[in-house]
Amino acid sequence: MQADNKNLKIIPLGGLESIGMNITAFEYDDSIIVVDCGLAFPEDDMYGIDLCVPVITYLQDNADKLKAFFITHGHEDHIGALPYVFKEIIAPVYATRLTMGLIEHKLDEHEMLDVVKRKVVSYGQHINAGNFGVEFIRTNHSIQDAAALAIHTPVGIIVHTGDFKVDYTPVYGDAIDLQRFGELGKKGVLALMCDSTNAERAGFTMTERTVGKIFANIFSEHTHQRIIIATFASNVDRVQQIIDTAYKFGRKVVVEGRSMVTVIEIASELGYLNIPPDTLIEVDYMKNYPDERMVLITTGSQGEPLAALSRMANGTHRKVKITPNDLIVFSSNPIPGNEKAVSKIINELYQMSAEVIFQDTHVSGHACQEELKLIYSLLQPKYTIPIHGEFRHRKAQAGLAKELGWDSEHILMLSSGDVLEMDGESAEITGEVPAGTVFVDGLGIGDVGNIVMRDRQHLAEDGIIIVVLALDAENGELLAGPDIVSRGFVYVKESESLIDEAQEVVNAAVCRMIDQGITDWGRIKSEIKDDLGEYVWRTTKRRPMLMPIIQEV
Amino acid sequence: MQADNKNLKIIPLGGLESIGMNITAFEYDDSIIVVDCGLAFPEDDMYGIDLCVPVITYLQDNADKLKAFFITHGHEDHIGALPYVFKEIIAPVYATRLTMGLIEHKLDEHEMLDVVKRKVVSYGQHINAGNFGVEFIRTNHSIQDAAALAIHTPVGIIVHTGDFKVDYTPVYGDAIDLQRFGELGKKGVLALMCDSTNAERAGFTMTERTVGKIFANIFSEHTHQRIIIATFASNVDRVQQIIDTAYKFGRKVVVEGRSMVTVIEIASELGYLNIPPDTLIEVDYMKNYPDERMVLITTGSQGEPLAALSRMANGTHRKVKITPNDLIVFSSNPIPGNEKAVSKIINELYQMSAEVIFQDTHVSGHACQEELKLIYSLLQPKYTIPIHGEFRHRKAQAGLAKELGWDSEHILMLSSGDVLEMDGESAEITGEVPAGTVFVDGLGIGDVGNIVMRDRQHLAEDGIIIVVLALDAENGELLAGPDIVSRGFVYVKESESLIDEAQEVVNAAVCRMIDQGITDWGRIKSEIKDDLGEYVWRTTKRRPMLMPIIQEV
Repeated sequence: MQADNKNLKIIPLGGLESIGMNITAFEYDDSIIVVDCGLAFPEDDMYGIDLCVPVITYLQDNADKLKAFFITHGHEDHIGALPYVFKEIIAPVYATRLTMGLIEHKLDEHEMLDVVKRKVVSYGQHINAGNFGVEFIRTNHSIQDAAALAIHTPVGIIVHTGDFKVDYTPVYGDAIDLQRFGELGKKGVLALMCDSTNAERAGFTMTERTVGKIFANIFSEHTHQRIIIATFASNVDRVQQIIDTAYKFGRKVVVEGRSMVTVIEIASELGYLNIPPDTLIEVDYMKNYPDERMVLITTGSQGEPLAALSRMANGTHRKVKITPNDLIVFSSNPIPGNEKAVSKIINELYQMSAEVIFQDTHVSGHACQEELKLIYSLLQPKYTIPIHGEFRHRKAQAGLAKELGWDSEHILMLSSGDVLEMDGESAEITGEVPAGTVFVDGLGIGDVGNIVMRDRQHLAEDGIIIVVLALDAENGELLAGPDIVSRGFVYVKESESLIDEAQEVVNAAVCRMIDQGITDWGRIKSEIKDDLGEYVWRTTKRRPMLMPIIQEV
Repeated sequence: MQADNKNLKIIPLGGLESIGMNITAFEYDDSIIVVDCGLAFPEDDMYGIDLCVPVITYLQDNADKLKAFFITHGHEDHIGALPYVFKEIIAPVYATRLTMGLIEHKLDEHEMLDVVKRKVVSYGQHINAGNFGVEFIRTNHSIQDAAALAIHTPVGIIVHTGDFKVDYTPVYGDAIDLQRFGELGKKGVLALMCDSTNAERAGFTMTERTVGKIFANIFSEHTHQRIIIATFASNVDRVQQIIDTAYKFGRKVVVEGRSMVTVIEIASELGYLNIPPDTLIEVDYMKNYPDERMVLITTGSQGEPLAALSRMANGTHRKVKITPNDLIVFSSNPIPGNEKAVSKIINELYQMSAEVIFQDTHVSGHACQEELKLIYSLLQPKYTIPIHGEFRHRKAQAGLAKELGWDSEHILMLSSGDVLEMDGESAEITGEVPAGTVFVDGLGIGDVGNIVMRDRQHLAEDGIIIVVLALDAENGELLAGPDIVSRGFVYVKESESLIDEAQEVVNAAVCRMIDQGITDWGRIKSEIKDDLGEYVWRTTKRRPMLMPIIQEV
């Protein structure tokens, strides 16, 4: 297949190498639409980084074609990069109501509400954007108002599921619109882009209502304790069930954690959360009620070190002190990578003699294998493009597709930046565009790159030794130094002889250079580095960053 | 209870706050014995640290009382600190045969074989050491020759299980000596110190033989592929089962990874591993055999970045290239904290189109709840002291003990450094001795302390800005600088204006000081830090380490 304007191009710009940063461009002729625009949280080795957002040079280079952003649901890995991307390129945003509420809060924080056109979409609605028609289809997920998108293109229909599960009895709203999936399937679907997160898990994800029953059991078995429940701020249905259970058992509810308060405010305002009167109270009034009449809902279920639960567990929360009469319930599973942080908090809570429950108190928001098979069977797409999840999860979905009868040629495993072209008959990766991660550190977007990151890793590993000396500008004579200062290397008071010897090594190197009449700074610096580096490695087996600085007087 | 020489003191010096670094001192009158002497691997926030070993000042201060070390089994978290501790204090070591083989290898690496007295002990043997008599009892674990210790003291018998499970059908040797546990129980046990690692898990840990059957299934279903199995180097029984299965299916075996090769050598020499002739081959001869006749056993099942499997997965292994005809089996579960590293390797292997199996191919080496109940029922100790495992795991064992009828007064939850005194009738924590972690970084033992670690964390987070200037020694005039250099802060070429403005801020501060005739270096440095820090925070919301250096000419 030749690259052709009359082909559909599907270009995932992020999200396929790691969890988060979901963003996919669809291009046909003079039109580009973008589905989702998420951020990722930094990996352990991304020192000092606050957030990761996708590289969007392809969109910047084709800004004239850009028609709109379509957002599947309101989680950070699908909406979080919008304010950063909107600093570079702007286009209208389409999303369902709760999703839009969360996006607007985000834009407001970045003072961008005035500059971005926004349109709330209902399920079933079709939006025209250039050569594309986009239809929002109801799904279920761990946040309400999640949507799959049927993208009607000149070469066929692409169905993008977003993150989803099949919940026949959701807490709020209706079940996933399986009928529409069936109808679209009958009509003919060119390609399915489907959530892979749980593709390694057999069976069917339990309904969110399961957790409500578990809460009822826990409350009825712990009638004398204060109950503290940690969960995801954005899981409004979970919060609803906690509030319902609290109300039923005559308990007041306090909400702790900034993101939790924000989401609850937005969800209540928009009518997604139904709070009985006199149930929610401010944390300051908690002292007016005995333990057995209180429930706290809190952030920090993933062990985030600055979240409310962490601060309670390590005794630094200003308003909530853990006591032996507390029951803490983790209504969550640790996301891979967070196991140790969660365990640390459980240990701390136990050490304060509190009771902790952390098993069987959560259901996933993603489809397991039987649900994936259901979607495949309803849509019967010609091609399938597993998305959302690490490679292993997408591979697991590919395995399921094979079991269901798709052959390798019709299962397309993409990488971020791949340009997949489809003409309705065939599909081929015809090119590659820039894709990757932009680091956000404090106020800086993209000013920390690979070199800075490598330096941070080097500094973290073995610290730094600085050597300063002043030379006479005219005759190259040594006027001051060489002075040695180190940070993060060794505890100097306990390693005096090491530092003394290092000083001698540097003195010797500098004297040798000066005696030889060498005035080339580069040469002097590199000799200092060589000699000092060799000495330090030999005596300590470490390689601190070595930084000679020469001043000319 | 008053502190008294005629009381037994039990002093855990490590291992109760985290996994690893297991070491417990037992003291009575003029005698001290130590059980186990392990290391711990560094946590993520211990930048640059290679190993952690326990603080042993209490043993150093009481070196004249120290009679012997008794080691329960040959895992790093029970033997790894011996060479480091022996640099400070020396006493004879007692252990079973394989355990001693591994200890000797370690001492040999540290050139200490000649200075440490060693005695191989058989199961059932009693060793007298001062006021103590120590008896080795056979247990099962994920390494052979594991022992529980019955420590006969003047105030009663203490049973220390080490790490253990109950395996009625072990691959090598006999099942745990439950009869002796029963006999000791009848006699009367003062206190039980029991492994808590799996105390949160219901049921019974499966026998190691289960894995052999799983291997047989895998081999019979994958007759055309090369099979690569990653597991723990020290799990000799697991290696035996892989070799047995390979032999049965007519495959040759290659061993990859230094620690794996070492353990296999030691275990074969001592007769713990039975390798059929012509089964093991060198990796260089692998090319002489087709894929379907090869099995590789490799280290790296925990995603360790430098282990053989990681190097195969990222294409940097010099002798093994992964192909689509490879099946990689993880015969291990990720240890908490290693999930992401393992997942990374699985993703890489999948991306090379290899097949990967990572579920249901491992059994634990630790006792689950039903096994713990069995040990409690056999021993019926007066007191129980849960050990081995994080606080949550020890708490789970305490919960089991309560279910079995022990009251809180007889369940003793200790912290490292606690001095527990027992006179046979009562038990009480009567004091505290120094306990904690000594960092090993390269050749340095203890020269990286909290200050250095905090500096490394600071450097890792936001980098460093160095400001250098030269002042005239006589009149305080500025002779050179101030010059600004940064590392790990921002990518300078892309942030020129930021660096230029920072330079101006520093210039202004220095000029102000000099104009005011201030020559106090401390004052000048602190003004530079204040002004520069304020500017950098305001413009970037970051706090790099700021380091002004003044030279006097």
